[in-house]
Amino acid sequence: MKRIFEIDPWQVVTHQFKQEDKRLQESMTAIGNDYMGLRGNFEEGYSGDSLQGTYLAGVWFPDKTRVGWWKNGYPDYFGKSINAPSFIGLGIKINGEQLDLAKVKFSDFALALDMHQGLLTRSFVYEGPDVKVRFEFARFLHITLKEAALIKVKATVLSGKAKIEFTSTLDGTVVNEDSNYDERFWLPIEEDKVARSIQVKTKENDFGTPQFTVLLKESLRHDGQVVEGEVTSASAELAEKLTVALAEGESYELEKDVIVVTSRDVADADQKAKATDLMTQLQSKTFEENLADHTAAWKKRWDKSDVVISGDEAAQQGIRFNILQLFMTYYGEDKRLNVGPKGFTGEKYGGATYWDTEAYIVPMYLCVTRPEVTKALLQYRHDQLDGAYHNAKQQGLAGALFPMVTFTGVECHNEWEITFEEIHRNADIPFAIYQYTNYTGDESYVKDEGMDVLVGTARFWADRVHFSKWRNKYVMHGVTGPNEYENNVNNNWFTSTMARWLLKYTLERLPKATEAAQKRVNVTEEEKAKWQDIVDNIYLGEDKDLGIFLQQDDFLDKDIRPVSSIPAEERPINQHWSWDKILRSPFIKQADVLQGIYFLNDQYTMEQKEKNFDFYEPLTVHESSLSPCIHSILAAELGKKEKAVELYQRTARLDLDNYNNDTVDGLHITSMSGSWLAIVQGFAGMRYNNDELSFKPFIPDNWTEYSFKINYRDRLIEVKVDQTGSHLTLIAGENLTVKVNGQEFELEEGKTVNA
Amino acid sequence: MKRIFEIDPWQVVTHQFKQEDKRLQESMTAIGNDYMGLRGNFEEGYSGDSLQGTYLAGVWFPDKTRVGWWKNGYPDYFGKSINAPSFIGLGIKINGEQLDLAKVKFSDFALALDMHQGLLTRSFVYEGPDVKVRFEFARFLHITLKEAALIKVKATVLSGKAKIEFTSTLDGTVVNEDSNYDERFWLPIEEDKVARSIQVKTKENDFGTPQFTVLLKESLRHDGQVVEGEVTSASAELAEKLTVALAEGESYELEKDVIVVTSRDVADADQKAKATDLMTQLQSKTFEENLADHTAAWKKRWDKSDVVISGDEAAQQGIRFNILQLFMTYYGEDKRLNVGPKGFTGEKYGGATYWDTEAYIVPMYLCVTRPEVTKALLQYRHDQLDGAYHNAKQQGLAGALFPMVTFTGVECHNEWEITFEEIHRNADIPFAIYQYTNYTGDESYVKDEGMDVLVGTARFWADRVHFSKWRNKYVMHGVTGPNEYENNVNNNWFTSTMARWLLKYTLERLPKATEAAQKRVNVTEEEKAKWQDIVDNIYLGEDKDLGIFLQQDDFLDKDIRPVSSIPAEERPINQHWSWDKILRSPFIKQADVLQGIYFLNDQYTMEQKEKNFDFYEPLTVHESSLSPCIHSILAAELGKKEKAVELYQRTARLDLDNYNNDTVDGLHITSMSGSWLAIVQGFAGMRYNNDELSFKPFIPDNWTEYSFKINYRDRLIEVKVDQTGSHLTLIAGENLTVKVNGQEFELEEGKTVNA
Repeated sequence: MKRIFEIDPWQVVTHQFKQEDKRLQESMTAIGNDYMGLRGNFEEGYSGDSLQGTYLAGVWFPDKTRVGWWKNGYPDYFGKSINAPSFIGLGIKINGEQLDLAKVKFSDFALALDMHQGLLTRSFVYEGPDVKVRFEFARFLHITLKEAALIKVKATVLSGKAKIEFTSTLDGTVVNEDSNYDERFWLPIEEDKVARSIQVKTKENDFGTPQFTVLLKESLRHDGQVVEGEVTSASAELAEKLTVALAEGESYELEKDVIVVTSRDVADADQKAKATDLMTQLQSKTFEENLADHTAAWKKRWDKSDVVISGDEAAQQGIRFNILQLFMTYYGEDKRLNVGPKGFTGEKYGGATYWDTEAYIVPMYLCVTRPEVTKALLQYRHDQLDGAYHNAKQQGLAGALFPMVTFTGVECHNEWEITFEEIHRNADIPFAIYQYTNYTGDESYVKDEGMDVLVGTARFWADRVHFSKWRNKYVMHGVTGPNEYENNVNNNWFTSTMARWLLKYTLERLPKATEAAQKRVNVTEEEKAKWQDIVDNIYLGEDKDLGIFLQQDDFLDKDIRPVSSIPAEERPINQHWSWDKILRSPFIKQADVLQGIYFLNDQYTMEQKEKNFDFYEPLTVHESSLSPCIHSILAAELGKKEKAVELYQRTARLDLDNYNNDTVDGLHITSMSGSWLAIVQGFAGMRYNNDELSFKPFIPDNWTEYSFKINYRDRLIEVKVDQTGSHLTLIAGENLTVKVNGQEFELEEGKTVNA
Repeated sequence: MKRIFEIDPWQVVTHQFKQEDKRLQESMTAIGNDYMGLRGNFEEGYSGDSLQGTYLAGVWFPDKTRVGWWKNGYPDYFGKSINAPSFIGLGIKINGEQLDLAKVKFSDFALALDMHQGLLTRSFVYEGPDVKVRFEFARFLHITLKEAALIKVKATVLSGKAKIEFTSTLDGTVVNEDSNYDERFWLPIEEDKVARSIQVKTKENDFGTPQFTVLLKESLRHDGQVVEGEVTSASAELAEKLTVALAEGESYELEKDVIVVTSRDVADADQKAKATDLMTQLQSKTFEENLADHTAAWKKRWDKSDVVISGDEAAQQGIRFNILQLFMTYYGEDKRLNVGPKGFTGEKYGGATYWDTEAYIVPMYLCVTRPEVTKALLQYRHDQLDGAYHNAKQQGLAGALFPMVTFTGVECHNEWEITFEEIHRNADIPFAIYQYTNYTGDESYVKDEGMDVLVGTARFWADRVHFSKWRNKYVMHGVTGPNEYENNVNNNWFTSTMARWLLKYTLERLPKATEAAQKRVNVTEEEKAKWQDIVDNIYLGEDKDLGIFLQQDDFLDKDIRPVSSIPAEERPINQHWSWDKILRSPFIKQADVLQGIYFLNDQYTMEQKEKNFDFYEPLTVHESSLSPCIHSILAAELGKKEKAVELYQRTARLDLDNYNNDTVDGLHITSMSGSWLAIVQGFAGMRYNNDELSFKPFIPDNWTEYSFKINYRDRLIEVKVDQTGSHLTLIAGENLTVKVNGQEFELEEGKTVNA
């Protein structure tokens, strides 16, 4: 655990700069606008340890992964959102000395991410031999003009005289830090010194996936007017240099406007013209006017989604940081996109789509964005069904298998215990259809396109189990559950339970599907009988004495001991223990049996929930960011308030406090929704089964109040909980009956109900 | 299965050349001399599909293996015996046309490996537009002058006139075919046109392993006299060109002499002088005289090891091919070396040391070479104990863990299910000490250095098991047994049985160890008590109803069905099925439970052996070359003659008949001893426990006779078996009592006993 920013309800702010924390700081000050994103790298450059990161949504590269121990069925490449050409560069020399915070003397450092609108500001005083200059930077990525990045720097000479040379750069020579053999993914196409643009293209690949072209264009403004410096270029690089001489007390403000277009939206040949148009559009307004537009758009987002916590500023900061980062990563405006586990904040997980989206993003986005956003996420998988069929075929299995990691639907991860075995995703992903249908009441999707997904995955599951004569049951061997600290286990309870759910749900919904869908999926009577037989006879491990479900067949044969028995200096275990030691240990990376109880919450008794929670929670190290929220929600349901709050804190401030000592790699974007879920489904106990919206709220002892809003079936509802009880306001929409603590209340527009 | 060479008792010969079989042919015509080896590439070059291969024993490179999904405890590099600079090159142009069998017209092709001495010859008639030239090549790697390679070509003009240009080359620009990102491993140092040498060095590496320098020197001779051509060079390359004009009926013979020295034996700066000395030595004799020396040395080897089979030439050819290839790979003359699974015949398995050596090479070499050779193999592991301690520490475990793949003792393979889990090697390797001691009667090794190995590995095992309260037994989780078609299983019977054996044997031998050894290993009373407790209480799975040992906990939960149920076109399954399908299947790659019964043969009843054989044999696909021999030996013991013979054939002609469709990659060197073991331990039923040498021979129905020799406790014994019985001759040494079919016989020097 490490906290390098100060507590503040609307700011992530620090007044310290430590070189050893640079990467962590960069992760935490990443900004994005759903179209692109940047780590918190310094505009003027930085020669110390740093992870450069610029990412363009949907721009990826199939990195080859030749290894000696190839396995049949492996995909050919590992896809990743590669480090994109960098456009923030604004090098600065003061009286000939390069401004580099790794080397120069400076004071009065401040760095802040304003969470109202994702505005990143930084200031410090450069202390040269006979000059002091205050620098103030600001930058944001425009959310209504997606292609635009705006950067501003103001230099004020506090003492002495300063000749300041600014060099604005566009740099296509970037490499991924994780690239094998330092391979460069970008090839230069053109540098245009007049247009002040560079155009680059991802290198050709052997895998038939598209090459992407990117054009960057920059322009400098001073006092709202374009100013022109001296432009030079090199292969895939462009620089524009401008020099000003300032006397003591004088200041100079320079703005760097950037437009980024890619072949995802604009044909190669049209990119320069398009960038020029967009630059004109950008420069028709001042920096401040653009910022005002941007901030207004953010305000609309916040108005529907802000969670207000009184009495605990750390908790308040955590939840807002998470909502901000989520919305900077994905707001559903480009249906071709999805939510990468690290968003635009690092290289890890390659910016690809994981099951995280359906399991963690969907249940929050259902409530805080329009239903169309969630539907777009469902549609994304439907669009990739061909890839899913391909994946199953690669394994010699029937039906469709959604990938662990993908850009196109085709699996692009090569680890047999994950690629081939962490197949629970193939029920978790369709489970989002169930969630969407339950929450919105909109059955149109499950009746039609959703049925393609359900039947495709059902066919996979029916082929993936086998009948064990020895057990006289269907069993599922060779599985990795959500707990990736066990691999290749048999009869993982979660996976088998979810597979069973999928088959059951598919059988239930199939008769109600549209005629067209029924015809398309063409399920035979034999298939249905087989699926029903599996539903009835699949083996789900249980220990009756302990009253628990068995995570996998041999779990109790392990040396069962609590997490508290691990010496503190050996945690997180994934950074200290060898892989085999982890695998043999009883320690659970993330909710597994409990994830199943969370998903199918209405199917288990409180006693079952409690016994399993009490058994598994002490064994769980929560070294996946996706874990504590699930435990927090169950703890809340079980009345274990202290535990619920502890785990909420861990999920809400996972990155702000660097709980798992890995935020240097980037933020845990997809798990950020967990803190929202912990408040809404956990503290407030929201459920929405059987067309019934219900709450069972509690408030942590040290909070005075918390409130959130949900968008439920064309209504906007505010839920406020304080130490006296809960207060529900129907801000907009038709009357609605909700249950609070088992009691029914009728909500009317504009009125608040106290419960 | 594919047979491209003819059946012949002393030749591997073919009169066909098919381009699609080139790689397979190259594997089969590989030659070596324990110091270096070559695939059967053509001297004159070949533009079609081919796998170039030149390997120098002990010259390796740590290839980096950066992958995204690194696991804690993984070693940094994958070591491999890299493709060494090539020295066989002898390009030929006839009247301006490049001789290239992929392109030119030719007839009368013959290619033969003479198994008396590993002499490779090749001939064909080049048919040019108006000329026919017969070419005859011969080459061998000298076994008494290890650094020498001798190549001869004779051109005879059958019709027309031929201007023939010979270009002898030395080429350091080679790459490994399996190299990641086509990385080159060799850097040029010097080309010396006067000395006709090139010197190259392996590139620097990040892992602190040594760089190797290699110097190649060539010289041409005609009629026994050195001839000098025109020499040119390029970076890491040298060429010497010589042109002759021949009229019809004339012939010309050119010899290329090559010396190869490496920094393993000669300091960089001394290599040129050393090579000159060696060249002088080589050229002090003619090609024929050198060949005679070489052949005489081979004769000595054969006299002690030949296995003669009458009545089955295919079987005869198979066993000789295997013995030849084994001895060309390793004959114990350089104690720093070991036996790579593919020897010098391909890139796969990287020429490193595996457990194959102890499990398959030792029991044969004990009998056919001097005891010192086996002792050198034991010593090799003792010398690498530091590495073994390092490996265990990497996994957070006590004691010493011998590596799966190594050059130095340090593990250099990165696959968690192998590196961390295929730990049975850590008993199999010490088991060679037991075998050596049992066979030779020499207790000095186990009493002293052997004890370091036993105690080091015992400590590992004692830490690797854990006590399961649930079972009230010690269990061993997370293991991959010899059957690599199951990974990460619990309580693999073979591994647990061998671990138990190791602990038991160590406890037994410890009191008899030298004082010095006891002091060194310093085993406490607590340790001994713990080891004994594990010996007494380790869980070894068994199904009493079936009367079998359980390969692993969940084996019976699988969909058990025989190999015969797999469609023929899906075999070998490792080339047709995805990895997960293989893992879930009941099909066994190689002997696992049966391997244990083979190793600890005297501990099980015939009934146990039979029930396990009958259960597991039908499930075994034998897709490891190490498998059929073990099954053959057990089948022989159980009187299942037909099965024993079938599996012998498979092991003896595995490469000659390309059973597993993978000989293109290289020969299965370490399993070649299996055919010898199948005859000696299988057909002849040789055992040597408790200082008693015994036999229980049978002869396959279609064989008229077979004989072999063993070197047992300073005696050379010939065992001949025909349809009338067996005939044992003590060729040299003191009298010895042996048992044949349970009856005792006294052997006397020079006399034959009929039993």
